[in-house]
Amino acid sequence: MKKQEIVLTGDRPTGPLHIGHYVGSLLNRVSLQDIYKQYVMIADVQALTDNSANPAKVRENVMEVALDYLAVGIDPAKTTIFIQSMIPEIAEITMFYLNLVTVNRLLRNPTVKTEIQQKGFGESVPAGFLMYPVSQAADITIFKGTIIPVGEDQLPVIEQTNEIIRSFNRTYQTDVFPEAKALIPKVSRLVGLDGQAKMSKSLNNAIFLGDDEDTLKKRIMSMYTDPGHLHVSDPGKVEGNVVFVYLDAFDTDTAKVAELKAHYQKGGLGDVVLKKYLFEVLNAMLTPIRIRRMQLAQDRGEMMRMLLAGTEKAREASSQTMQEVKKALMLNY
Amino acid sequence: MKKQEIVLTGDRPTGPLHIGHYVGSLLNRVSLQDIYKQYVMIADVQALTDNSANPAKVRENVMEVALDYLAVGIDPAKTTIFIQSMIPEIAEITMFYLNLVTVNRLLRNPTVKTEIQQKGFGESVPAGFLMYPVSQAADITIFKGTIIPVGEDQLPVIEQTNEIIRSFNRTYQTDVFPEAKALIPKVSRLVGLDGQAKMSKSLNNAIFLGDDEDTLKKRIMSMYTDPGHLHVSDPGKVEGNVVFVYLDAFDTDTAKVAELKAHYQKGGLGDVVLKKYLFEVLNAMLTPIRIRRMQLAQDRGEMMRMLLAGTEKAREASSQTMQEVKKALMLNY
Repeated sequence: MKKQEIVLTGDRPTGPLHIGHYVGSLLNRVSLQDIYKQYVMIADVQALTDNSANPAKVRENVMEVALDYLAVGIDPAKTTIFIQSMIPEIAEITMFYLNLVTVNRLLRNPTVKTEIQQKGFGESVPAGFLMYPVSQAADITIFKGTIIPVGEDQLPVIEQTNEIIRSFNRTYQTDVFPEAKALIPKVSRLVGLDGQAKMSKSLNNAIFLGDDEDTLKKRIMSMYTDPGHLHVSDPGKVEGNVVFVYLDAFDTDTAKVAELKAHYQKGGLGDVVLKKYLFEVLNAMLTPIRIRRMQLAQDRGEMMRMLLAGTEKAREASSQTMQEVKKALMLNY
Repeated sequence: MKKQEIVLTGDRPTGPLHIGHYVGSLLNRVSLQDIYKQYVMIADVQALTDNSANPAKVRENVMEVALDYLAVGIDPAKTTIFIQSMIPEIAEITMFYLNLVTVNRLLRNPTVKTEIQQKGFGESVPAGFLMYPVSQAADITIFKGTIIPVGEDQLPVIEQTNEIIRSFNRTYQTDVFPEAKALIPKVSRLVGLDGQAKMSKSLNNAIFLGDDEDTLKKRIMSMYTDPGHLHVSDPGKVEGNVVFVYLDAFDTDTAKVAELKAHYQKGGLGDVVLKKYLFEVLNAMLTPIRIRRMQLAQDRGEMMRMLLAGTEKAREASSQTMQEVKKALMLNY
């Protein structure tokens, strides 16, 4: 018997998933699906908020993301995987929530403010982008999600969601919605190969779950280490050295990692040898995922049937909640 | 065979309809339904944008507005009357349109700017209120409306709708949506009993279609005429005299009205006599409407079945359009 809490999480289908997602969120989901009822959303509508002119990219990556999910062990029998655009109740409830939030409150949201700057919208912020915390409140509440795995930078979104929940429950004198709690993962954002920024597809500093062995090797060989470590015999730095960051994140043999760090700091351990070791570790982890992913990709029709079945199950929950919402709003004709 | 154009119009259910609506929009709809395919929307979702804390008022007035429609001769066999909240495609398409409009563009919309001031939102403009031109673009386009009867003050909303249509068609290389044209009625806004402002329920200066004879008489007797017209023998002013405004709008006997105006300006025609004449004119017009309204109100179950049947018909059209939209957005899984 699973616990009462409901996990709601998901990804924007704007690219295949990488090992940063793996350690930051996917592994968590594989554990959580045995403890809680879990919904994982492929957020195609949200992906369009800043890819409105590129629907083909979004469409294509819906399948890539689904392949990644199943390849890492998210099990459609335990987790409801669904496509956001096929749940109209999310849009419907968003419209009601927009009445409970002021424009100024949205403009002050720190996550949105930061992202508006990062994305360089300037004076041309799409209205859909400004609204996205409201849309996320809709995603969460339509499934009565109570445990929301998010990075620390997304905490204001959970705060905004709970403000909306309290306002809705108070205004319509109901208890339809439970408040949501953020679940912050231990490794929230893995650094990219360049050591400069978080791993991301757009920065081309990522290792994807579906990368073949050659690609994996090339990416690891290009990795940022210690620029002062010119000769094998030189002592090298461990801090900020991406190879060690990844060994800490992915190698379960912690004694071995400690030994390598000591050797590297003392001198006598070359970058190439070190990177070959990291390759062994990552390749051992990624090989079963890669094989499973290739097998799954052979029957995309079956994958799509799986997604549609998950979506149908999600729709049962969302239409049940919508009935309660419409009763509270007296729109139950 | 009706012409290809599609009329989309409607009302926010925030009060019963009055003779300003009758002459400004309802009579038009009765004519238009014989020429065009016509959708009339009871905009309960939009009514909630500035009545979010008062859902009972909205719910109650859905039926009042429907009674007014049928009482004046809008015929459910010719016009599709439907309830907005039961068309989820409107919310869905709104979310897509929000990506095509900037926040600054919405803040510059003259209609929205004026209404934000009128409603005294100050710094607390609900996000849903700012978005409402986008939501109206959704209302119009989901039914491929091409003829939109609106007051002149609502022209910026039609302009915003056409901007969205052009942007959508261009971005997704489609011709799903035809552009919309405003149809501006001859009498766009009738002045209220006080002669100060447009007729409206909230200003308590209205004559409702359902008013009984006594109420009608009292309202006419309280009407603003010429404050300088103290004695019957005094010459009186016709300009700004609400009684004459209404006679011009509602009395088909224009020769008689011209004669009364001349008599009033010369002196010798008292306000009470004049108002009694207006009462006869309005009562003759309103009596059949009032009787029909009372008959219809006796079977609210039947009225609701009519609304649900209209809504189902509207839903067929909206889901057809949504299929085309999802194909254009590549969200047709």
